[in-house]
Amino acid sequence: MAVRGAPAIGIAAAYGVALAGAVRYAASPGGWEQDIEQDLALLAASRPTAVNLFWALERMRGVIKHTSGDPTQALLAEAKKIHEEDIAANQHMGQLGAALLEGQNGVLTHCNTGSLATGGYGTALGVIRTAYAQGKITQVYAGETRPWLQGARLTAWELLQEHIPVTLIADAAASALLRLGTVQWVIVGADRIAANGDVANKIGTYSLAVAARHHGVKFMVVAPASTIDMKVFSGADIPIEVRAAAEVLTLNGQTIAPAGAGAWNPAFDVTPADLVDALVTERGVVLRPDREKMIELMRSL
Amino acid sequence: MAVRGAPAIGIAAAYGVALAGAVRYAASPGGWEQDIEQDLALLAASRPTAVNLFWALERMRGVIKHTSGDPTQALLAEAKKIHEEDIAANQHMGQLGAALLEGQNGVLTHCNTGSLATGGYGTALGVIRTAYAQGKITQVYAGETRPWLQGARLTAWELLQEHIPVTLIADAAASALLRLGTVQWVIVGADRIAANGDVANKIGTYSLAVAARHHGVKFMVVAPASTIDMKVFSGADIPIEVRAAAEVLTLNGQTIAPAGAGAWNPAFDVTPADLVDALVTERGVVLRPDREKMIELMRSL
Repeated sequence: MAVRGAPAIGIAAAYGVALAGAVRYAASPGGWEQDIEQDLALLAASRPTAVNLFWALERMRGVIKHTSGDPTQALLAEAKKIHEEDIAANQHMGQLGAALLEGQNGVLTHCNTGSLATGGYGTALGVIRTAYAQGKITQVYAGETRPWLQGARLTAWELLQEHIPVTLIADAAASALLRLGTVQWVIVGADRIAANGDVANKIGTYSLAVAARHHGVKFMVVAPASTIDMKVFSGADIPIEVRAAAEVLTLNGQTIAPAGAGAWNPAFDVTPADLVDALVTERGVVLRPDREKMIELMRSL
Repeated sequence: MAVRGAPAIGIAAAYGVALAGAVRYAASPGGWEQDIEQDLALLAASRPTAVNLFWALERMRGVIKHTSGDPTQALLAEAKKIHEEDIAANQHMGQLGAALLEGQNGVLTHCNTGSLATGGYGTALGVIRTAYAQGKITQVYAGETRPWLQGARLTAWELLQEHIPVTLIADAAASALLRLGTVQWVIVGADRIAANGDVANKIGTYSLAVAARHHGVKFMVVAPASTIDMKVFSGADIPIEVRAAAEVLTLNGQTIAPAGAGAWNPAFDVTPADLVDALVTERGVVLRPDREKMIELMRSL
């Protein structure tokens, strides 16, 4: 959790491989390609849900395979390329997502999907930044995102840096907010998207999707294509990281529950594709994603 | 918020009137009935949403009207009667609510509705205590209930006192939990119920009702008849207390959001009657409440 946000996790892992390549080659110019496997395995084991991690490691592995001599420069170049591509993808998604908003909109987002979670600019927050600059957003609401409070601690900070006013809500207040009719879009990121369009994202995303559908509010998922895992049949097959109960039983280091209480603390949940109105990737927008549309999206280019 | 829980607020107000009666009579045996009006007004202004407060004040006002001489004993007797009636009502509701559960059940509750929120025993938590004792409950989940964390701080404590194991969840994890299929009933209390069966209760209750309906999980509201306000046409007419943004932006004085961030902090939300599967009162159970059934319930006895 020192690095969080699916794209940022992938980028950090890529730079990690470049660093490992330099260290391993210096230690053993003849055996570094074998030695670095344990670094790749360590990085792969760091988080189970976000697929960008595995995608980035595969790209770095491709460079390792085709490098002779000192791999440092080639690995660093590939990591930088992944990083730069992510920023470019975010900016493109910002345009594509903002184009879906009509007139004046209130938006609700969850967790953090901005510069702190990506290579820069942001996924869901990139769409919000672009749409706000275009005058299409009148009000941004952010769920505080217990237990880690990424909404309160990170998203609110990022929006204020951009001079975009933000109103935080307790996550449980989302349905009451949507009932007011002042929010037209819920806009979130993703940690892994299955081949049928099911979306794994920060715990609470699914609650928002259910509430959005109940209130006729549109639900947008913004994620680079590297988040899509066509090897995973549906959301039920995405491994969900269940973290320590202590994260729920404490808040910012303070104990908030009696000794003896248990807690269930899944870090992510799965939103079925049929609750997603729009999936925005740098490859294009998929409305009401399903298996066929996902295959078409990933076939293109 | 020193006293919270709709029934407890009403009971505390009744004892407050008894105390005021003693003080006012001692100060002015001839003018106390006029003087105590400002105490009644002060108590009435303390919280806007829970109707038990106004109901209890009306009962105490009835004693004031029919008392001559020192009112202290009569007022104290009425306050004690309100208190005792609440405990008896809770125990009766516990039986009625538990009877609705069939077989083995997982239950999810919200906020705190136990001894700390009532005269004793509890409303929703009273049903859970009774049903657990009857072997009908295998697992109790409690939403932590941000921003005040009544679920984590009070409900978890009360259940552990009763040796009932409890698993806390971040409020946003509710939909992911219900999707697992291990919860059969969401059981909550109420702060005010309108004449059409709409239910005002702690913020987050409505999100749970929406999620319950989406997943085919039953939704039970447990509240004494004093919570029902037949003078209020529908939930839209119930005044909702919106509290300070600081309650969302801080915890126990610890800042958890950047300076400049706003927050929307309604203390309650309204669940429409059509999302309520069972309303349990000491007067009886109303399945799928509506205007006609509410009139029938309040006409009876």
